[in-house]
Amino acid sequence: MAPKTYDMIVIGAGPGGYVAAIRGAQLGLNVCVVEREHMGGICLNWGCIPTKAMLRSSEVFHLMHRAKEFGLSAEGISYDLDAVVKRSRAVAKQLNSGVGHLLKKNKVTTIMGVATLPANGRVSVKTDNGTEELSAKHIVLATGARARELPGLEADGDRVWTYKHALVPPHMPKKLLVIGSGAIGIEFASFYNTLGCETTVVEVMDRILPVEDAEISGMAKKAFKKQGMTILEKAGVKQLDRGKDTVTAHIEQGGKVEKQDFDTVISAVGIVGNTEGLGLDALGVTVDRTHVVTDAYCRTEVEGIYAIGDIAGAPWLAHKASHEGVMVAELIAGGHPHPVKPESIAGCTYCHPQIASVGLTEAKAKDAGHEVRVGRFPFIGNGKAIALGEPEGMVKTVFDAKTGELLGAHMIGAEVTELIQGYVVGRQLETTEEDLINTVFPHPTLSEMMHESVLDAYDRVIHI
Amino acid sequence: MAPKTYDMIVIGAGPGGYVAAIRGAQLGLNVCVVEREHMGGICLNWGCIPTKAMLRSSEVFHLMHRAKEFGLSAEGISYDLDAVVKRSRAVAKQLNSGVGHLLKKNKVTTIMGVATLPANGRVSVKTDNGTEELSAKHIVLATGARARELPGLEADGDRVWTYKHALVPPHMPKKLLVIGSGAIGIEFASFYNTLGCETTVVEVMDRILPVEDAEISGMAKKAFKKQGMTILEKAGVKQLDRGKDTVTAHIEQGGKVEKQDFDTVISAVGIVGNTEGLGLDALGVTVDRTHVVTDAYCRTEVEGIYAIGDIAGAPWLAHKASHEGVMVAELIAGGHPHPVKPESIAGCTYCHPQIASVGLTEAKAKDAGHEVRVGRFPFIGNGKAIALGEPEGMVKTVFDAKTGELLGAHMIGAEVTELIQGYVVGRQLETTEEDLINTVFPHPTLSEMMHESVLDAYDRVIHI
Repeated sequence: MAPKTYDMIVIGAGPGGYVAAIRGAQLGLNVCVVEREHMGGICLNWGCIPTKAMLRSSEVFHLMHRAKEFGLSAEGISYDLDAVVKRSRAVAKQLNSGVGHLLKKNKVTTIMGVATLPANGRVSVKTDNGTEELSAKHIVLATGARARELPGLEADGDRVWTYKHALVPPHMPKKLLVIGSGAIGIEFASFYNTLGCETTVVEVMDRILPVEDAEISGMAKKAFKKQGMTILEKAGVKQLDRGKDTVTAHIEQGGKVEKQDFDTVISAVGIVGNTEGLGLDALGVTVDRTHVVTDAYCRTEVEGIYAIGDIAGAPWLAHKASHEGVMVAELIAGGHPHPVKPESIAGCTYCHPQIASVGLTEAKAKDAGHEVRVGRFPFIGNGKAIALGEPEGMVKTVFDAKTGELLGAHMIGAEVTELIQGYVVGRQLETTEEDLINTVFPHPTLSEMMHESVLDAYDRVIHI
Repeated sequence: MAPKTYDMIVIGAGPGGYVAAIRGAQLGLNVCVVEREHMGGICLNWGCIPTKAMLRSSEVFHLMHRAKEFGLSAEGISYDLDAVVKRSRAVAKQLNSGVGHLLKKNKVTTIMGVATLPANGRVSVKTDNGTEELSAKHIVLATGARARELPGLEADGDRVWTYKHALVPPHMPKKLLVIGSGAIGIEFASFYNTLGCETTVVEVMDRILPVEDAEISGMAKKAFKKQGMTILEKAGVKQLDRGKDTVTAHIEQGGKVEKQDFDTVISAVGIVGNTEGLGLDALGVTVDRTHVVTDAYCRTEVEGIYAIGDIAGAPWLAHKASHEGVMVAELIAGGHPHPVKPESIAGCTYCHPQIASVGLTEAKAKDAGHEVRVGRFPFIGNGKAIALGEPEGMVKTVFDAKTGELLGAHMIGAEVTELIQGYVVGRQLETTEEDLINTVFPHPTLSEMMHESVLDAYDRVIHI
């Protein structure tokens, strides 16, 4: 039987894949998307969304404990872990159904199954009912990534977890070790610590959240320690001895190895791209350290094969994936889209306090040869922050001293994940300090700090 | 005795006045600020800041009642009105002290007293210890505004309140009438309603929040009614009969007058500028309907006399005042600042749900002759909104169909007062739809709706 032919086949229905499919369909392409597990991918089912639902529960729990501060009271404040998880799963399920609905509405064909590329232009899908053969001139790889497993630290789902287990925990940890302090590790550390779990974070680099500006990492560490977390930097877990209810971790720091018992371990040591089993080698698609190599337009070296999102490399962020999805669909439809600029992609970590940043850190700006002007503004100088009872945090901005270009912005504190977009819009429009100084940020808002930080960089801050 | 001479005298230490003074001092001017009551003015002592503190308490109270939804529980949830108010006053006091400290740090002379202008270039200040005579080539009027009093509806502080009484309530209202549905009226209605008070809002115009886009007003009305408020539009309070514990309001709607009893009334029917007693008439400064008339640079018709903030007219917003303060100080110091653009000043209302907007409403854009493209995106289509448990709200954008200029943005829902700044930055940089479409708003955030609303205006929305 002749294969079914489409204009574009997308493999993987995560945020990159389903957005590419919808945008392609909007542009008149006949699109098929193949997904092996869940509509919406990891992000929506096992990542961004369910973690945010769980973190919302812990945020409200934390606020309830602070009731007295706000002139309120309550007794017997408690959580029901099963109910917290159930809500998180329901949120993920709601959005997962939403993606199916959106694809249908946009007349995208969806096939549940495992795809391979037997030849260029061909996709073979193993489904529950046999194999479907498809063909398309344009094939978009959007298969995402999964948790990296280090030898000896492999998850078992019982006492040693990946993010997936941590989202549907078989028990509430009492003493938790989190290996790795990127966004995923820190968010789970924050969630479980807030619910009263004794939490230790081990980071191999010299500071937690190592991709953030060093000052932000420092402030985060201080805040987490104040909340009772133990933070071990320049430290590594060499071995895990798994007992019945206990895992003994061999933690190396400063050349010394110490053994410590935990009841639960979360391994969050990075991710690897899902490149296996697609047949990429045979097609001549280059894979470098588990990621497909592409140009700025997400094109692989093989004509007609594209890769977007996590499988195409860092930053491993859903919003990077979805913008690449739009870009690649427009390219395939014959348009002239702009490449997605990695330097204008913000990163957000939804721990307490929140962290968000875009562009270059101060150190990276200097390394890149910029003479910099740096502004800082503390939450304690902001009226809304004080009114909210959230006086801890900072907004830091880094400008090129010669041109006034906003090179980077780095924030820690309440709601910064929602604030950062103002700087992202500014960077998209190539703002300099002058336009940010003339922008009227409304009062009383946390966003006024975004203005004051710029003023501080130019020695004209008002409120400190 | 010869008057003390300054480069610049600022009358009034609200957000316009104290910012003008600090900026003037930063630019090397010898500045004196005269304040009759509180450093920080109404905004900081009796306006923006203490209301936000009280609304934070009611927000947390509301969240506590929703505990079960988040997998949490608590018993005996209650509030202590005195403690809520005490916190609000402490927040105001902290910021009030802060302003004094900032003025001192910037070497601004401050005098507590009542100022008059006996002649151009002269200020006479009545203090507790006699009268001080001052002179300056540049005098900045920043005396602010106060609540408008309608005949028969005057506040008495017992059963009929202005915003000042409502911030230090002598009792908790059980049945409350709020007259006027601008930001001030609606914020107090939201606060007291959330604490369990039976609340009625009367608005003389055809919809509540009449300066907002009509769709936003409609959604706000629906939300408030769902929360149990009674909303009367095209209605007016003709008379208040004040009894011992009861106020009988004569409410006219549709030509019929009905009497209704309340235990408390808040009058929030607008504000009037504090122009009296300054000697403006004699100096030849024009006052039009309680507001000083100025040009775009805040200059009155009399050389050397400027007016900023509420006394200089709408919009009556602290951030407009403070930017005018910076602008006028730079002008006086010999700089070439840009005038503050009223059309890029956002307005925020901190009710539940929050409301924020900037630029033209859809109706005003059409009235101004624009052919428009309108985008809408509902909170229910946003993953973070669902994860937060805040699925109600909308982001509406209005573009010029020919040029793609972002004419206005209108938002209702969780955290929109913090989101709006992204559009304000965009407007400052004269964005069109294309740059907003190419901006990568981070996932998962509420701010993604700001992107989707733009996509919707151009028929390429993804998530609805």
